[in-house]
Amino acid sequence: MAQDAVNAKRFSGENISDFIQRVLIAAEMSRDDARVIADLMAEADVNGSDGHGVFRLPGYIRRIKEGGLNLKPNIRIEKEKSGMALVNGDNAQGHLVMRYCAELATKKAKESGVAWVGSHASNHAGPAALYAKIPMRENMIGLYVAIGNANHLPPWGGMEMLLSTNPIAIAVPGLEEPPIVLDMATTVAAYGKVKTAAQRGEEMPEGWMIDKEGQPLTDPNKSDEGFLLPIGGPKGYGLALMFGLLAGTLNGAAFGNDVVDFNSNFHTPTNTGQFIVAIDIAAFADVDTFKRNVDNIYRTMKGSPTLPGYDEVLLPGEQSHKKRIDREENGVPIHDGLLTALGETASEMGVEPLV
Amino acid sequence: MAQDAVNAKRFSGENISDFIQRVLIAAEMSRDDARVIADLMAEADVNGSDGHGVFRLPGYIRRIKEGGLNLKPNIRIEKEKSGMALVNGDNAQGHLVMRYCAELATKKAKESGVAWVGSHASNHAGPAALYAKIPMRENMIGLYVAIGNANHLPPWGGMEMLLSTNPIAIAVPGLEEPPIVLDMATTVAAYGKVKTAAQRGEEMPEGWMIDKEGQPLTDPNKSDEGFLLPIGGPKGYGLALMFGLLAGTLNGAAFGNDVVDFNSNFHTPTNTGQFIVAIDIAAFADVDTFKRNVDNIYRTMKGSPTLPGYDEVLLPGEQSHKKRIDREENGVPIHDGLLTALGETASEMGVEPLV
Repeated sequence: MAQDAVNAKRFSGENISDFIQRVLIAAEMSRDDARVIADLMAEADVNGSDGHGVFRLPGYIRRIKEGGLNLKPNIRIEKEKSGMALVNGDNAQGHLVMRYCAELATKKAKESGVAWVGSHASNHAGPAALYAKIPMRENMIGLYVAIGNANHLPPWGGMEMLLSTNPIAIAVPGLEEPPIVLDMATTVAAYGKVKTAAQRGEEMPEGWMIDKEGQPLTDPNKSDEGFLLPIGGPKGYGLALMFGLLAGTLNGAAFGNDVVDFNSNFHTPTNTGQFIVAIDIAAFADVDTFKRNVDNIYRTMKGSPTLPGYDEVLLPGEQSHKKRIDREENGVPIHDGLLTALGETASEMGVEPLV
Repeated sequence: MAQDAVNAKRFSGENISDFIQRVLIAAEMSRDDARVIADLMAEADVNGSDGHGVFRLPGYIRRIKEGGLNLKPNIRIEKEKSGMALVNGDNAQGHLVMRYCAELATKKAKESGVAWVGSHASNHAGPAALYAKIPMRENMIGLYVAIGNANHLPPWGGMEMLLSTNPIAIAVPGLEEPPIVLDMATTVAAYGKVKTAAQRGEEMPEGWMIDKEGQPLTDPNKSDEGFLLPIGGPKGYGLALMFGLLAGTLNGAAFGNDVVDFNSNFHTPTNTGQFIVAIDIAAFADVDTFKRNVDNIYRTMKGSPTLPGYDEVLLPGEQSHKKRIDREENGVPIHDGLLTALGETASEMGVEPLV
């Protein structure tokens, strides 16, 4: 993890969670909600989702201060059938809404085999994989899709930013091998990576973004002047669009022109849409047999020969799994720039800084 | 459709369906099954899926002749809960299995709101969009994923072909605008496009395939010497892998090393896996309001400004929709090379050729 070590101090996931809780409680959030959110955010950091953990705290606090978030939400089911539910997040922090939805989908899938739970009036919830992994606790597969909270992607061939990175995560448990967990934006790079690059003073590789002339854009500080690029050109645009219709339009959540840019507007409710599907393995197959077959796929991919220039074949989620093992033992590296920002948040809220 | 006009005669969808029925009945398929398959194959051609319609007939016939297909199948539900079913395709032609699954998912979703139906012991079923569109008849959204019937894709960084193009289709109905229908392989090009290029004597663009040294491969006749490239590099690999676990492993269908290459082996049952999800719009929202919102998204994308070098923004499914309008009026263009191959199939089976 050489890349993690440069200009970074390490902090345990527990210390990160404690710090986030102090800040959220000082911002007048209930202790219970603060704990749930802080644990999920710290888990994101431990999993290596550097753009989606404590990094987001200053933005969340600013939203609370400007009245953009409901601190006393009534998260509730609005519509329900055996295979689905539609949840009103009541403008709560997204972590609360998505934990609710993932647990609801899991509970429903015990009866129905497969359950799809959508949300509106939700908010940014951190990395997609966090929620796709929740059904795994009950031997289920999880599938999660979200509308990103700022539009950075034009339709293919266009130059008006009408789409977000709209990510998908799918988590499938193995028996002895780690779970296979895909967590990907439908753009070549997630916008969180652009923000992380800017904070670290790093240049972006070509292919992440283009400017308004269609030329490569590599300075992350100029990201406002360009667009993210979708994976596979029109295909990634197509996926972002369909995921937007499913996670946004179907749920009565914001999509297209309605999306509130949460990087510049901290007071308007975002009406974020997400959905999660829980698939009960036992409804389809013997659970252990299925997991053994997943292990076989894992090992087959892992053991296959590599192209010139590649050391090994990686499975989706493998890098995150390795980071998790490292960070559980050695702590989460927090870069100087982020540490300074978090210090400012701490003094602004009058709480002890991250230690 | 200038590209369609070169060295191609045009035939109506009805004539194409009649021709396919003659051939399938001569191959000892029941009249009812032949009609269902022929109509779906001709519909694929009318929709512009040139690599998935009558083009596939010679291969299907060869499979029947070599005993690889069950002509008297008992397609049946093996497992069922309110939100799911697992279907045994009994090695029937995939079109029969997938029509069954799509109609079953639609029927179940009327009760459960969302229903997920997976299959094993199925076969190649033509273009993914055909089945994603079936739930639209009942004001539902359709989502379909299949395991491709030949491995052409190594895991990212690898060189053993363990994955197929594993496509996804999602179909969402509008009110006045055409439905938005994504139908995409998780590779930059579907293998059907490579086969079509070979038959037409055309070169492939760079980016579709690489050879075993990792260099671009552009001669479609040398496709056996290389691999397809996934969209977005590791992301497309990740999608193909997860779709394989969901459509294959979960359903007890072939995935990875088990996939039978239906281009070279015509006698071994393929144990193809697919799944379809039907999402009842009425369970989430007022149907007309939802469709009007989809129209708004359609028009917003369509009306947005273009980058230098682009004439217009296209919606997923728009090109297919335009081809459909053209082909319903003017017929489906059948290229000389394909017409010759179909003529050979006709005389081999002792039936009238395509007229």
